[in-house]
Amino acid sequence: MIRQMIGELNPTPRILMGPGPSNVHYRVLRAMSTPLVGHLDPQFLSFMDEICNMLRDLFQTKNRLTIPISGTGSAGMETAFVNFLVPGDTVIIGVNGLFGERMSDVAGRCGAEVIRVEEEWGRIIEPERMIQAIKGNPKAKICAVVHAETSTGAQQPLDEIGSFCKPREILFLVDAVTSLAGCGVKVDDWGIDICYSGTQKCLSVPPGLSPITISQKGMDHLHLRKKKIQSWYLDLTMIERYWGEERFYHHTAPVSMLYGLREGLRMIFEEGLEARFRRHRTLGDRLKMELEKLGFRLFAQEGYRLPMLNSVYLPQGMEDLPVRRRLLNQYSIEVGGGLGQVKGKIWRVGLMGETCQIQNIEYLIETLKEILA
Amino acid sequence: MIRQMIGELNPTPRILMGPGPSNVHYRVLRAMSTPLVGHLDPQFLSFMDEICNMLRDLFQTKNRLTIPISGTGSAGMETAFVNFLVPGDTVIIGVNGLFGERMSDVAGRCGAEVIRVEEEWGRIIEPERMIQAIKGNPKAKICAVVHAETSTGAQQPLDEIGSFCKPREILFLVDAVTSLAGCGVKVDDWGIDICYSGTQKCLSVPPGLSPITISQKGMDHLHLRKKKIQSWYLDLTMIERYWGEERFYHHTAPVSMLYGLREGLRMIFEEGLEARFRRHRTLGDRLKMELEKLGFRLFAQEGYRLPMLNSVYLPQGMEDLPVRRRLLNQYSIEVGGGLGQVKGKIWRVGLMGETCQIQNIEYLIETLKEILA
Repeated sequence: MIRQMIGELNPTPRILMGPGPSNVHYRVLRAMSTPLVGHLDPQFLSFMDEICNMLRDLFQTKNRLTIPISGTGSAGMETAFVNFLVPGDTVIIGVNGLFGERMSDVAGRCGAEVIRVEEEWGRIIEPERMIQAIKGNPKAKICAVVHAETSTGAQQPLDEIGSFCKPREILFLVDAVTSLAGCGVKVDDWGIDICYSGTQKCLSVPPGLSPITISQKGMDHLHLRKKKIQSWYLDLTMIERYWGEERFYHHTAPVSMLYGLREGLRMIFEEGLEARFRRHRTLGDRLKMELEKLGFRLFAQEGYRLPMLNSVYLPQGMEDLPVRRRLLNQYSIEVGGGLGQVKGKIWRVGLMGETCQIQNIEYLIETLKEILA
Repeated sequence: MIRQMIGELNPTPRILMGPGPSNVHYRVLRAMSTPLVGHLDPQFLSFMDEICNMLRDLFQTKNRLTIPISGTGSAGMETAFVNFLVPGDTVIIGVNGLFGERMSDVAGRCGAEVIRVEEEWGRIIEPERMIQAIKGNPKAKICAVVHAETSTGAQQPLDEIGSFCKPREILFLVDAVTSLAGCGVKVDDWGIDICYSGTQKCLSVPPGLSPITISQKGMDHLHLRKKKIQSWYLDLTMIERYWGEERFYHHTAPVSMLYGLREGLRMIFEEGLEARFRRHRTLGDRLKMELEKLGFRLFAQEGYRLPMLNSVYLPQGMEDLPVRRRLLNQYSIEVGGGLGQVKGKIWRVGLMGETCQIQNIEYLIETLKEILA
């Protein structure tokens, strides 16, 4: 076969200050280049146990079923709904950004009736409104919110809603894709039953895996359901047999990605959770202050701004796409634009995991000064 | 937080002669350790186009929608069914091994009525039987078979079934997880409408991606369907907008895995498809001959034995698990045991991609001589 040969992989490195993926430490990349062992090799089974243990500490939970799903954060979202819903169920979803919208779409595809508690993009949903919605729909099976709305930069308070759900039948579902490993996600303390994340944000592991954890209340729901789960690939009743003691083959585990996740988690606990959260908080504040000095205005609701994803209105007269293009092509800095209804109006500047370093902030700010001058 | 620190990743390397994952060349591992760029970075969009072009050549197709799905081969299988079926549809599935069973399970979860054309494990399904089943069910939407049954080592003939389906409404679906890149998979010539594979077999890229290709007839079905696809994550109508010209964000692409796939594909075309298929054929024959000399008996039907997955009955008196355990722990060779109804009775010895080397065969055979002596 004669074909035009494609050259060696040789991308210009980037400073990834968008909404993910974030930069990845060379130790994680090096771990991913480790020769493979089989997915049932005793060596690999030990790695799996180590990963689950570290994920439990990261989610601050004792939940037995705490594992990485073999897909990106969106696969985690689908896992979170598809395993618990059957057609005709009711779910209550807080919608104040793109990922709340996506949850509604996913739940709808499970045949559920979706009750939307809507709020303006950039604002949080008042916990009391979610609680009223639960009271008004006592048969709802799931109440779902997004902890860190990646499309808006707002941080949703969780504990009040969780406390209300805890003594009740309803399952409390939280999207922690962007928050996990960048700020506290206290699954047990906050009464969260279903919580998923992604590796490519504050964990600073490449995209491709979605850590998920399920409470005992969630597991009871799962084991009592009668109808088969509509997804074979994301069926937790089968996946738990592979990750549990039985080691029953389901699908071939993504070995190299799991090598990377193991190393990324090791680095998180070397730094320590509190130190890591502090780093995100301090540098998130610093970036916001510097951007404001340049004429950017903060988009998300005051008091509820994410440290790892900073959403800002562009300064008067500044163009979105040309400036982002110049940042990327001339300075190799990637920042994120707005999605959906705020497309062209805001930027989303990520400070996630490995990206969250003072030198990145200073370089971005100095560069913007040059461009805006 | 105080926790027991988990040590550096340091597995003993293995010779992976099981049913996958296969060994991965250091060039692919090195590519995976390349620093990440964003999933909408123009550099990355070029890589995506290069991957699609190489996948088209590998599938021997001109199909526009030829992409890697962000999950393992089983996610590819689910994608293949979930996008085309609605509840009440009829599908005809050839079942002569575990993966035919799995297809039936997946199709059933889409609400389809499954007509099974069954055959003994290890044997192929006579094409005429599939054709008769189609004639008997003129409204069936999909006719599905497994090209290379990884659980039995049988190679299913495809062209006759494809020729029959081509002028008809019915879609011809083929599982090529284990065959692709190890023997010819002629999607266009054989009239295949939906074909998926996995990266961890003859492509010799780590597990985690599933190449898939859809014919124009398949795309027409897809675009005419009215009911939403039950999976958000695997919804091809959305995924095609990201991989196509529009570059519309769906989920964050697994960047590092795609780096690895790109390099693996490059290596396949450096070797050339014909040379690669010949290598698998020649060494597959060699391994079968050597195993027979040691008292193993070939399991799969004569004339239809896969080159890259060699299924054999154990010699009289040889124990399955203790010998496989010794091979692994003492010699670092992984071979696969039997699944389902042939558990404990057969071995499955893989010669896939990078693993398919004469030195691996000789080492395995000499080792078995020592163990059996």
